[in-house]
Amino acid sequence: MSKPKLHIIKIGGNVIDHEENLSSFLVDFSKLEGLNILVHGGGKKATEIAKKLQLEPKMIGGRRITDADNLEVVTMVYAGLLNKNIVANLQKNNCNAIGLSGADGNAIKANKRIVKEIDYGFAGDVDEVDTNTISVLLENNLIPVFCAITHNKEGQLLNTNADTIASELASGLAKKYEVSLTYIFEKKGVLESIDDEDSVIESIDSEMYETLKNNNIIAAGMLPKLENCFYALSRGVAEIHIANSDFITNKNTQHTTLSL
Amino acid sequence: MSKPKLHIIKIGGNVIDHEENLSSFLVDFSKLEGLNILVHGGGKKATEIAKKLQLEPKMIGGRRITDADNLEVVTMVYAGLLNKNIVANLQKNNCNAIGLSGADGNAIKANKRIVKEIDYGFAGDVDEVDTNTISVLLENNLIPVFCAITHNKEGQLLNTNADTIASELASGLAKKYEVSLTYIFEKKGVLESIDDEDSVIESIDSEMYETLKNNNIIAAGMLPKLENCFYALSRGVAEIHIANSDFITNKNTQHTTLSL
Repeated sequence: MSKPKLHIIKIGGNVIDHEENLSSFLVDFSKLEGLNILVHGGGKKATEIAKKLQLEPKMIGGRRITDADNLEVVTMVYAGLLNKNIVANLQKNNCNAIGLSGADGNAIKANKRIVKEIDYGFAGDVDEVDTNTISVLLENNLIPVFCAITHNKEGQLLNTNADTIASELASGLAKKYEVSLTYIFEKKGVLESIDDEDSVIESIDSEMYETLKNNNIIAAGMLPKLENCFYALSRGVAEIHIANSDFITNKNTQHTTLSL
Repeated sequence: MSKPKLHIIKIGGNVIDHEENLSSFLVDFSKLEGLNILVHGGGKKATEIAKKLQLEPKMIGGRRITDADNLEVVTMVYAGLLNKNIVANLQKNNCNAIGLSGADGNAIKANKRIVKEIDYGFAGDVDEVDTNTISVLLENNLIPVFCAITHNKEGQLLNTNADTIASELASGLAKKYEVSLTYIFEKKGVLESIDDEDSVIESIDSEMYETLKNNNIIAAGMLPKLENCFYALSRGVAEIHIANSDFITNKNTQHTTLSL
């Protein structure tokens, strides 16, 4: 028996930070048929609120260091403000969304990142996706909307990278579903030349990925995203697309497709 | 066929504001058998965060006026910080909690309170409880944990009194379930004399309630709570208790039972 199809879409700052982009994306998302999950990142709001609360943002190597105060802020902003506004907006469009963190229904269990050279604080690396709750929701026509907060099943919330949440959900759900994963970001796809917005590489397989990586063609910011993607493909995710938000309504728009 | 039993428990500031009280309550709550829903209020945290963000809390007649900035704060604190920490804490106790606002699964639709003498801002009065999503969760052994944020199905989140959320959920779910509703607060029950903590009135029916009200025996702060309760009873809620947190594990502890 073939597995039911499931589409997981991840949006980040370029959609979330602009009210018009977000509204227009959510209208498009609401029109999608079949089984869908939305994953959203944090955008600038958490940094804004942290600043207003006079917390200094702590970054090492482009990653936010999550101390206890910053964990409070991201929990408030990601799981509260952003998640609930996205859900309310989807409900307006008659899309029966339900907002979740990894703690809800024990959907995503993580562990606090082990301190090696850097102490990332309350940053969570995903251990396990519990597909039971998510399947119940999907089977009852509810559309899960995940923010990037997880828990360790010992009462501790953890801040987790939203790209990772998306790829871990995709990998975990690949046992039950034929999963298509789409990362929406500001560019049309993976670019061959960072200065040429139209230099989209249409498809990348794992061999080509190694070549591109070794020749330093892929921009540094794109590397962890692609690592996540190829790891997800190796764990059974059927297809992965990297695209801008036009791709949601028009599959013929330029984009990058990843395969093993 | 008799309806399945459902227990709805509402906790407020006296539990939420003290970490030890909250942990200990959540351990007790996790041990409850059967179908359960938890509703939590906001406590002091929202006021604290609002103050740190240099927002002046606006109160008229003991009610918070929710302007746009304050709505952001309560959405962050109630739906984010408090709700997700409560869920994570319950998950630690092997209670499969799932945190919800009224927007999630369109569980609680409200309307922005009409401006008469006072403009309450983004305060929501409940229109309708959609029992579908809640029933799906309960039937799949998930324990819904509601914060006091609703939506108007037009994309607007609204701040709603947590006591009202509890009584509206109870009333809405009374069609499908035999609902027992318990309000946990700092006193042992409704007191005959505000100065005597042991002067608990063991049971109040609607006739006695009118008498107590007319004779100014019931404290002003208790009146809206009791109004909510008798309205819920009139709409089919099977039983309502007002008690302190000891009641959760020991039904023989002093408390007030309300009936029509």
